[in-house]
Amino acid sequence: MTITERLAELGITLPAPAAPLAAYVPVVEVGGMLHVSGQLPFRADGSIVTGKLGVDVDAEAGRDAAERCGIMLLAQLQAALGGDLDRVERIVRLGVFVASDPGFTDQPKVANGASELMVRVFGDQGRHARSAVGVPVLPLNAAVEVDAIVAVRAA
Amino acid sequence: MTITERLAELGITLPAPAAPLAAYVPVVEVGGMLHVSGQLPFRADGSIVTGKLGVDVDAEAGRDAAERCGIMLLAQLQAALGGDLDRVERIVRLGVFVASDPGFTDQPKVANGASELMVRVFGDQGRHARSAVGVPVLPLNAAVEVDAIVAVRAA
Amino acid sequence: MTITERLAELGITLPAPAAPLAAYVPVVEVGGMLHVSGQLPFRADGSIVTGKLGVDVDAEAGRDAAERCGIMLLAQLQAALGGDLDRVERIVRLGVFVASDPGFTDQPKVANGASELMVRVFGDQGRHARSAVGVPVLPLNAAVEVDAIVAVRAA
Repeated sequence: MTITERLAELGITLPAPAAPLAAYVPVVEVGGMLHVSGQLPFRADGSIVTGKLGVDVDAEAGRDAAERCGIMLLAQLQAALGGDLDRVERIVRLGVFVASDPGFTDQPKVANGASELMVRVFGDQGRHARSAVGVPVLPLNAAVEVDAIVAVRAA
Repeated sequence: MTITERLAELGITLPAPAAPLAAYVPVVEVGGMLHVSGQLPFRADGSIVTGKLGVDVDAEAGRDAAERCGIMLLAQLQAALGGDLDRVERIVRLGVFVASDPGFTDQPKVANGASELMVRVFGDQGRHARSAVGVPVLPLNAAVEVDAIVAVRAA
Repeated sequence: MTITERLAELGITLPAPAAPLAAYVPVVEVGGMLHVSGQLPFRADGSIVTGKLGVDVDAEAGRDAAERCGIMLLAQLQAALGGDLDRVERIVRLGVFVASDPGFTDQPKVANGASELMVRVFGDQGRHARSAVGVPVLPLNAAVEVDAIVAVRAA
């Protein structure tokens, strides 16, 4: 099964990749690795999941926001790979930043929204190293931001 | 035009690279990639731009601080490359940490100070992936910290 | 002297590596590089050093917590390398996240707990690039989290 077929089976429709908010690019490929810029939790209607965990976003909504970041990562990968997600050899690393009240300590539970998506889509090749940390605030007041390093096969 | 000529044209004079604050090194080269330690916003007189965005530093001053971090990155690259900035093949990734009040959400605008500098100096080879996040506080109360991954050509 | 002998000389006993808190893996090896997930400051009894610098953890205790993160990194490397720490070619980069009150600015001093450990164990090959930043809170209320990129020799 191709990754595109797997996405269809999972009922995941990839949106248009988000334009960078500023003077950078979404993905840089170098030495067989894609470095993907931090992705925010866009909803299908183009709005963003905003707020802070432990204040106005609960862990389950945070988990869902992290999954939305993961879907944006997939959309960026698809665009960078000319549509061919089967060139993904390994999701190497996710960096997960969770907008958090200083009393909220469940960042791993939130980050799983992105991590589990990668395993559902890519299987063992989706199993990655990860750092998850709290931050006081993110661009556009987003609840979660996720960046990635991805190993790819030659085209 | 060489990058050194380009810097002169832009009126940018690179300072002496900052010594690490502690038990690490400014740059590690491995497999054709330079990993550059987090750089702080030093002024020409050796002082640092301090404070937090949304409290005592406004977005424009933050943008300027990020540009100063970018200039320190260039100074580190120059030192690591024995003066030859033309060995830079691609600015691959910038990590931008912005000392932020929890209510400040313009981290991308601040981070552009570093990002736009890279494009002015290196052109398309300066276009990079980026993550920009808020943090509550940085070393020495710096307003911004920026690290980098840079692909280089063999000497 | 092998690294295992060096650890013995330093009186460092590596614990069992920590299981990931969630849906990810501790280490991914790709292209001669190990990407190591963020490690928390576990004590020998399995408890974690918790709290925030500038509130309920002082700089010296923070430094010790960072060293514990470093020991967990070594334990993960040892497991990923089938016990052979001599395959470590270079500690390339440490990312150090310090749970900090907004008034605490000594993150470099804290981070040195991990950085100096790497140099004690690996000598010049332990000298790395580093970013150290404050964060409001970490998973499980840990005081410090450290991740790493490590270059390794072929087995």
